[in-house]
Amino acid sequence: MFKKVCIIGCGLIGSSIARAIKKNNLSNKIVSSNRSDTTNKKVIKLNIVNDSSSDTKEMVKESDLIIIATPLSSYKGLIFKIKNSLKNGAILTDVGSVKEKAISLIEKNIPKNVSWISSHPIAGTEESGPEAGFSELFKDRWCIITPSNQAKKRDIKLLRNFWKKIGSRVDIMDAKQHDYILSITSHIPHLIAYNIVNTTLDINEKKKQEIVKYSAGGLRDFTRIAASNPIMWRDIFIQNRKNASIMIDKFIKNLRDLKKAIKNKNEKKLEKIFTKTKKIRKEIVKAGQDIGKANFGRK
Amino acid sequence: MFKKVCIIGCGLIGSSIARAIKKNNLSNKIVSSNRSDTTNKKVIKLNIVNDSSSDTKEMVKESDLIIIATPLSSYKGLIFKIKNSLKNGAILTDVGSVKEKAISLIEKNIPKNVSWISSHPIAGTEESGPEAGFSELFKDRWCIITPSNQAKKRDIKLLRNFWKKIGSRVDIMDAKQHDYILSITSHIPHLIAYNIVNTTLDINEKKKQEIVKYSAGGLRDFTRIAASNPIMWRDIFIQNRKNASIMIDKFIKNLRDLKKAIKNKNEKKLEKIFTKTKKIRKEIVKAGQDIGKANFGRK
Repeated sequence: MFKKVCIIGCGLIGSSIARAIKKNNLSNKIVSSNRSDTTNKKVIKLNIVNDSSSDTKEMVKESDLIIIATPLSSYKGLIFKIKNSLKNGAILTDVGSVKEKAISLIEKNIPKNVSWISSHPIAGTEESGPEAGFSELFKDRWCIITPSNQAKKRDIKLLRNFWKKIGSRVDIMDAKQHDYILSITSHIPHLIAYNIVNTTLDINEKKKQEIVKYSAGGLRDFTRIAASNPIMWRDIFIQNRKNASIMIDKFIKNLRDLKKAIKNKNEKKLEKIFTKTKKIRKEIVKAGQDIGKANFGRK
Repeated sequence: MFKKVCIIGCGLIGSSIARAIKKNNLSNKIVSSNRSDTTNKKVIKLNIVNDSSSDTKEMVKESDLIIIATPLSSYKGLIFKIKNSLKNGAILTDVGSVKEKAISLIEKNIPKNVSWISSHPIAGTEESGPEAGFSELFKDRWCIITPSNQAKKRDIKLLRNFWKKIGSRVDIMDAKQHDYILSITSHIPHLIAYNIVNTTLDINEKKKQEIVKYSAGGLRDFTRIAASNPIMWRDIFIQNRKNASIMIDKFIKNLRDLKKAIKNKNEKKLEKIFTKTKKIRKEIVKAGQDIGKANFGRK
């Protein structure tokens, strides 16, 4: 499919893509670029890529597909560094979780003969780093593609097929819509998880042991998401702050309503809300977006 | 261990206890009482209990251990109904998630020769009903015991051993402390999960399909908890409303702080909070309260 693919940032997502490319024979050569030389050595040693170096320009050269898989705050420095090393006719993509700002930033700074097509695979775990990656990460998960204006049609088709070949289902969506929908399905859930774990720890540093002991009552589920990569999520919230802010306000308004219903012992209202929320679970399982087993199948 | 055990309410928890009693040979006879005759027939047919009837008084008679496993709002009616049918020297327990109000209610209304020892197994799934139960539900989970003042020491010891025999680790805690700790580790996480799923559905009935599709970005985790038994949770929030209210206020205050930090692009603050919350996950896994595999081991 490609002669050379370059992955910038070989963490959980980047290394999973590299593994999936290798497994499905989608490129003759896979290279990566990481700031840390320890990581560059590690990904070569683990046989995830053929070559890796902190010299991003050098790694990018002659690549047919370049995938940015670093936190959003790194994009600006990165694009200025690589723009003159991009191969004529290459495809540039990323895996970032917020689109509007990133797409226009890169669109303004990229040579015309490069197709800039942003991607967002809705996949991941709470772990980070190249060791955490695995080739099946994208299987049955959605990948949203947001092509920039100057992207060539055949390149959009090619990138779409690339994601399909590593197991994803692919949708095309504009940046604004993407950032809105993902604020609901991903960004706010993460922020809420971080906030509940933070609130728990804040008031109860002394009681931490008891909180850990009895966390199977519900809290443990939130600690998984609240263990996600701090830098990655810091950048996501800041870049999607407008949508996040609107959602936070709605969330607080509804929580206040619930508090009032609890205070007033409004049984009917509580029952109605909790019955409504029960239904959506089944639809998510039916859509193949979670497993149907109780308790996520945990034993 | 017992000649006859009576389980009032053979749902997820009640039927799991019945199965565990059977599996571990802890009683010669297990009966249950359910309001619905369909359920009474079902639990006999499924071989979960030896006998079952809506006539709670009749089922309770001659039982050495009576376990209330119905929603908290049913306790009042229930205790008046059964108090004169309880066997001399019997142990009465429950599996309720809030203690202060329930314990004093039953303590006031129970014959002196019955040991009332409240229990709370910190275990469950998002499913409900007798079909959802399984004998291993309590394995390696904590069970908190809160004896009433008039409970006999040897009965406390007996009940403690009972929970251990079905796989639990047992702690003794007073009611006030229990209701405070559990509001943090269980009640507020459930309320927040209900609230985020409700907020999501509220604004986006039209976009529901997209929300279901992309829920693997984080939201799906919350939908599991928000699929829990509506009646049971309605009662929990109302009975523990004082602790819930304090925690909701703290949660909102912290969420506002986060919103401000996002708005001000306060990278350092966000990074600090998200790094702190990451640590607690490891401790929970280390304490055996969640599995260590990424993504709860989901494939």
